Amino acid sequence: MTGRLIGVGLGPGDPELMSVRADRLIRGARHLAYFRKAGRRGRARKLIDALIAPGAEEIALEYPVTTEIPVTDPAYNAILAEFYDAACADLRFRIQGGQTIVVPCEGDPFFYGSFMHLYTRLRDDVPVEVVPGITGMSAAWTATGEPITWGDDVLSVVMATLPEDELTRRIAETDALVVMKIGRNFDKLCRSLRRAGKFDRAWLVECAAMEEQQVMKLSEAEGRRVPYFTIVMIHGQGRRP
Amino acid sequence: MTGRLIGVGLGPGDPELMSVRADRLIRGARHLAYFRKAGRRGRARKLIDALIAPGAEEIALEYPVTTEIPVTDPAYNAILAEFYDAACADLRFRIQGGQTIVVPCEGDPFFYGSFMHLYTRLRDDVPVEVVPGITGMSAAWTATGEPITWGDDVLSVVMATLPEDELTRRIAETDALVVMKIGRNFDKLCRSLRRAGKFDRAWLVECAAMEEQQVMKLSEAEGRRVPYFTIVMIHGQGRRP
Ligand SMILES: C[S@@+](CC[C@H](N)C(=O)[O-])C[C@H]1O[C@@H](n2cnc3c(N)ncnc32)[C@H](O)[C@@H]1O
Ligand SMILES: C[S@@+](CC[C@H](N)C(=O)[O-])C[C@H]1O[C@@H](n2cnc3c(N)ncnc32)[C@H](O)[C@@H]1O
Repeated sequence: MTGRLIGVGLGPGDPELMSVRADRLIRGARHLAYFRKAGRRGRARKLIDALIAPGAEEIALEYPVTTEIPVTDPAYNAILAEFYDAACADLRFRIQGGQTIVVPCEGDPFFYGSFMHLYTRLRDDVPVEVVPGITGMSAAWTATGEPITWGDDVLSVVMATLPEDELTRRIAETDALVVMKIGRNFDKLCRSLRRAGKFDRAWLVECAAMEEQQVMKLSEAEGRRVPYFTIVMIHGQGRRP
Repeated sequence: MTGRLIGVGLGPGDPELMSVRADRLIRGARHLAYFRKAGRRGRARKLIDALIAPGAEEIALEYPVTTEIPVTDPAYNAILAEFYDAACADLRFRIQGGQTIVVPCEGDPFFYGSFMHLYTRLRDDVPVEVVPGITGMSAAWTATGEPITWGDDVLSVVMATLPEDELTRRIAETDALVVMKIGRNFDKLCRSLRRAGKFDRAWLVECAAMEEQQVMKLSEAEGRRVPYFTIVMIHGQGRRP
């Protein structure tokens, strides 16, 4: 009897925004695997703290420290690939031995998520399942109290890790905008928004649907140190009756 | 004592993909308002059939028939505006009289949803609340079994109602693509995808996370009559360790 790998979208943070299926799977899980930074508790782990069954086994997958290496350096990818390969060797062994491993994922697992790196390595060897979730961006635009897209609006989802010129061009060319992975790219993002002439229309949302949630016009936030869970967005202005 | 307007994201279709909060709000609703075409049951209504409490009041908001009028004709917008105004006059009266009205919404309410037209008309007069949901597109990419975005991928969400040249340009310029509102624009969309040189990479998903779900390469679907709930997508190929 082989087990399964289940990637479970937790939604943006608030446990009530988990799907009924995710809630059931997390509560029922006997083996949970999640990513975390060495010495940290794990962001996904924290979201499910109140739901984990007593006696459930927890498998922490600790990211290697890569802060000294630029993301564009091939060494960066090589170190991460080795980490995912090793994690998957362990998970494959467990699943083939009969364990079902539940992997809690922030937001939706297939939307820029780390789970994808386990999924593509394991799907040819063991049964896999994915439960979609409410994305961080849905919680973020809900928090602003303004709909994100109307009529024929084009929505572009863009990572702040892009080079400044490309970021600027993408921002200029879209109707509605969502920017993720901001962190140390915040100042660059602000410059791009100004260059695209859209800075004054942008909103900043930190920790959408979490206790620490903050919503403000970006113009009130410049120079701020933003947390990992930060989204910048511009609402579309499309046709509306 | 005034009531409230609550827009509740139902997610893509499967009742288990509703959030815990949505499930609770729908089951507890004493007054439900939803859109439908004249003579139809209503798509959002159908998704919650098994959850509605006995004795709950149902307020069907019936779209006016506009099939003869092009969407770009000002008359089209005028007829719809009148419809939303009238619906809101009734809802405002009810809410100010103490009723809390729950509006079930397909997917996420603030993402191209009709609820937005009620919300913007009523939010200055009565308390409003919005519960985000899993979008149709999240269910669609989950159904393909392939992650939608990796690394720095740009995701563009585009409506098939756009003019063919703009559609083609948007498809050509993005990494990952989601196309919605397809219906009668299906042939135009196929032409745009070919012109952008991406037809062979596209997937078609009908009724994601519903019983009727169908997933296929678009190249196996050309000429098909697609249902209202149809998404075409191209997965990103971004950096992955
Ligand atoms: C690696 S991506 C994962 C996205 C996730 N899978 C989702 O569906 O939202 C991480 C980025 O998502 C954004 N994010 C996710 N959840 C968020 C939340 N609740 N509030 C603000 N930003 C969030 C942040 O921009 C963060 O840098
Ligand atoms: C008016 S928009 C509403 C979108 C919705 N608010 C959401 O969050 O997905 C309707 C379009 O969404 C897409 N759609 C929504 N749910 C879907 C599903 N379960 N399967 C396929 N397409 C879906 C279709 O392209 C449809 O034309």
